Amino acid sequence: MRYRPNEPGHPSNDRFVLSKGHAAPLLYAAWTEAGFIKEAELLNLRKIDSDLEGHPTPRLPFVDVATGSLGQGLGAACGMAYTGKYFDKTSYRVYCLLGDGESSEGSVWEALQFASHYQLDNLVAIIDVNRLGQSEAAPLGHDTDVYHKRCEAFGWNTCVVDGHDVEELCQALWQASQQKGKPTMIVAKTFKGRGIPDVENADNWHGKPIPKDKVESVISTIQSEIQTSDVCAIQPPAQDVPPVNTVEIKMPSLPTYNIGEKVATRKAYGLALVKLGKANKHVVVLDGDTKNSTFAELFKQAHPERYIECFIAEQNMVSVALGCAARNRTIAFASTFAAFFTRAFDHIRMAGISRSNIKLCGSHSGVSIGEDGPSQMALEDLAMFRTIPGCTVFYPSDAVSTEYAVSLAANTKGICFIRTSRPETPILYSQEEKFEVGLAKVVRISDADRVVVIGAGVTLHEALSAADELAKQGIYIRVIDPFTIKPLDADTIISNARATGGHIITVEDHYKEGGIGEAVAAAVSGEPGILVQSLAVSGVPRSGKPAELLDLFGISAKHIITAVKSTFAN
Amino acid sequence: MRYRPNEPGHPSNDRFVLSKGHAAPLLYAAWTEAGFIKEAELLNLRKIDSDLEGHPTPRLPFVDVATGSLGQGLGAACGMAYTGKYFDKTSYRVYCLLGDGESSEGSVWEALQFASHYQLDNLVAIIDVNRLGQSEAAPLGHDTDVYHKRCEAFGWNTCVVDGHDVEELCQALWQASQQKGKPTMIVAKTFKGRGIPDVENADNWHGKPIPKDKVESVISTIQSEIQTSDVCAIQPPAQDVPPVNTVEIKMPSLPTYNIGEKVATRKAYGLALVKLGKANKHVVVLDGDTKNSTFAELFKQAHPERYIECFIAEQNMVSVALGCAARNRTIAFASTFAAFFTRAFDHIRMAGISRSNIKLCGSHSGVSIGEDGPSQMALEDLAMFRTIPGCTVFYPSDAVSTEYAVSLAANTKGICFIRTSRPETPILYSQEEKFEVGLAKVVRISDADRVVVIGAGVTLHEALSAADELAKQGIYIRVIDPFTIKPLDADTIISNARATGGHIITVEDHYKEGGIGEAVAAAVSGEPGILVQSLAVSGVPRSGKPAELLDLFGISAKHIITAVKSTFAN
Repeated sequence: MRYRPNEPGHPSNDRFVLSKGHAAPLLYAAWTEAGFIKEAELLNLRKIDSDLEGHPTPRLPFVDVATGSLGQGLGAACGMAYTGKYFDKTSYRVYCLLGDGESSEGSVWEALQFASHYQLDNLVAIIDVNRLGQSEAAPLGHDTDVYHKRCEAFGWNTCVVDGHDVEELCQALWQASQQKGKPTMIVAKTFKGRGIPDVENADNWHGKPIPKDKVESVISTIQSEIQTSDVCAIQPPAQDVPPVNTVEIKMPSLPTYNIGEKVATRKAYGLALVKLGKANKHVVVLDGDTKNSTFAELFKQAHPERYIECFIAEQNMVSVALGCAARNRTIAFASTFAAFFTRAFDHIRMAGISRSNIKLCGSHSGVSIGEDGPSQMALEDLAMFRTIPGCTVFYPSDAVSTEYAVSLAANTKGICFIRTSRPETPILYSQEEKFEVGLAKVVRISDADRVVVIGAGVTLHEALSAADELAKQGIYIRVIDPFTIKPLDADTIISNARATGGHIITVEDHYKEGGIGEAVAAAVSGEPGILVQSLAVSGVPRSGKPAELLDLFGISAKHIITAVKSTFAN
Repeated sequence: MRYRPNEPGHPSNDRFVLSKGHAAPLLYAAWTEAGFIKEAELLNLRKIDSDLEGHPTPRLPFVDVATGSLGQGLGAACGMAYTGKYFDKTSYRVYCLLGDGESSEGSVWEALQFASHYQLDNLVAIIDVNRLGQSEAAPLGHDTDVYHKRCEAFGWNTCVVDGHDVEELCQALWQASQQKGKPTMIVAKTFKGRGIPDVENADNWHGKPIPKDKVESVISTIQSEIQTSDVCAIQPPAQDVPPVNTVEIKMPSLPTYNIGEKVATRKAYGLALVKLGKANKHVVVLDGDTKNSTFAELFKQAHPERYIECFIAEQNMVSVALGCAARNRTIAFASTFAAFFTRAFDHIRMAGISRSNIKLCGSHSGVSIGEDGPSQMALEDLAMFRTIPGCTVFYPSDAVSTEYAVSLAANTKGICFIRTSRPETPILYSQEEKFEVGLAKVVRISDADRVVVIGAGVTLHEALSAADELAKQGIYIRVIDPFTIKPLDADTIISNARATGGHIITVEDHYKEGGIGEAVAAAVSGEPGILVQSLAVSGVPRSGKPAELLDLFGISAKHIITAVKSTFAN
């Protein structure tokens, strides 16, 4: 590997991803050999005041992506390799070390397919076939032939080596560097605890320290195997990585929608991406074979060289985005149906631990998608994304606010999620409206308001219909668009609730659990005199027309009107 | 296939899983041919009052598992085939039809590995290689050779056929029935819209109806291709499926723990499974190479023939459990670290839509696991499982309540989740204590109580420590163990809050979002005069000792004491 040992995060360095994150002590030892970590620090492994954690996290500058949930490293490495080959167009190479146990994870095979499909010949993976899993032998044991066949069938240049033979490994790595058009897989047959009596190739040593009374003899055994005391010579990287600017991105123009015009927020997402792509050439877009539904295809049409088709493999899509965004080489937006981001929850969770800046957009939220039925309806995505530390959750309700959400997401640190909707809804905001993260909009207000209704996406429009209908009956309600569900604008919600008698009704195209209603209930839970009633989808929905479903699941204007009236009846 | 057309759910029938759920109309048409659906009903496709939904759901008796989120059907089929071969030990066979696009999903390859590893020769899968995905061609196009190589490398008996040639298909299916020790994959090369001018093999027809002006000619084209008007002769199944009893399962004895004794709830889970397995021979247990951490290994030791090692492939583990539990053939418990169930959120979501009765247990919840660090800490699992319709979420706080949770889960319809903890904690309850779903326990009570503290798992013990310390200072608190987080016992919480001045403090080893604090805030959000303060983990945690982490992340006894005191200061 070519890298600057004192600048582990330098953009020109070769990248290394330790997918088998539980081998973290080896990674730390290697960086000690390279001179970056002081040897004494190694003894602070897993202590609360040390960054040498149980599994690698980006608290350490040589860790680009956190690992420890298995089978995720190779996808991130794919994103780095794709970025190196196609966006940075430069010579850095990407290495990834996997365990054999984790090769049971499907996401590994998603990554294998991605890498060969895109001919990532700057990517080298090594599977450490040590036979042993955590609780028993891995399913293929030491059968390196099967690994060989599988990797070859997935389009990789594959070789099998004795993983304890340094010369053989070096030769394989050199051959990998000569390979054109294909990534290389090195299947390394190894024995866990090699050379240590009673430990080598034995069960029940996973994650366990050597007993104190055996430590001395084990250390002297290992020391007797060391054949050189030379400090390894590290080759510096080429300096061919172009500078990138991924901050303070400004849209080239204001939104061009007219109030009342009907546009689906999912379409506004695609249109906004096209503009953002013009504003900054490091904006890249990924989608998982849903681009004609999420409207990511508009970006592909405008900027084809910056679009990555990830096919139907959402876990890998998120990991590739993570890899693309590592070291701030790109601003990566990835989209699919919001429901299908549940497929990648573990990857999103790990992206949170990685402190990644990926931007995810989920379309087709809620029952309002209609006929396709429950498998395609996202009703738990807000709950999911709200749990991610530092994640900003946008839920725009018209095309103008969607465009601002895209622009704000590009400029907001941390993971961002944008929830879009399938139906066309009228434009609510003028093009100059100012949107901020954590700032709600009061969209209907009068001195006579007697209750606050909070809606978002399609339900904000239902709330406005309810307000119109109620106004005819002389009942006035205040309607709030939260814009971001996390952070939630508690101040605006509380002050408006106080101004209108203390009753809040939330209405959302999402399950009750972890959604807007609970977020609002939690936000006001320390405020005396404020009550919250939640209208949300419950039970398993079904196919039907969008309007029928909003009604059947209790989140249409009709139900809001009933809820408002019952508020006074109490 | 051998089945009773008028009893689609009969246990002796061969099973069919339509993994490519978007082809639902074909499934409905086939069941019309078989005589189960009336032809006129087909015209109600996707209407709100018809069960012929956009993707198949178990509202229809011939659908065992809902599909529509791609790549999930084969795992469920594996569970059915495993059950047929090893539990039911009978002759029914399992068929699964996949799309080529969905073969990009890693979970498909998890299932392929599982099926060959367990020699499921009663399983036949067909990949419909029609080349076209939703938004563009699938990555392998019509390259059936690559599919062939991949499936063969994954240990399947594989053949490639012309998917439009019925005779060739029948021959392949017959050969599959002769195959011993291996599942069979039929790679069927097809053309989407075959025979229809301007539609066959063309882009942009996915999920779109034929335009009205072309319908007549398309129908007559199709009708001209029909070579026989014979009603297909359906072979009845063998009647060799044994009866099963999967209801009203009683533990053979009361828990045998003593109050004060220290036992980890994760260990109590394993011990309870052993007892449950003795009570009912249809209890089966799955784990994903974490059995020595979740303690599922205790069940394996006691009942090896009913344990399924699923290796490191959590998505497939959930799908296999779903298949095992289909048609109530088994009571399936599956375990891994709670954090790694996020890997299978989409599968769990679909299991919810499938109205499955699988029981899932997640160990290693929260920061209290200690040194392994954030990748292994479940801090979003309550939020995730709470979103699943009809899911019961158990969070036992000692070994006795864990044993009751296991027994209740076995007897509770719908998905159940049991959250266990890594540290050893003292037994709180006597062996005769009565536990019910939705019934909280008041574990510390006096007339002088001035605040309610709700904790669960390790934080219940922190709350009790805080109560002890505060009592020394003359401050009394009421402590509640919710036992189930969903359903939550709102009545007990509200009545105790009213009795103690209206202040509730929740404390949980979980993120704030979607956790206990929000569940409680939502439950009391309609009650005037009750305030809730939430102590929960925020931000990305780190490695350290369990007690250090509880303290650092604000959920230890010390923080509870401070919160209690600040309640009065206001």
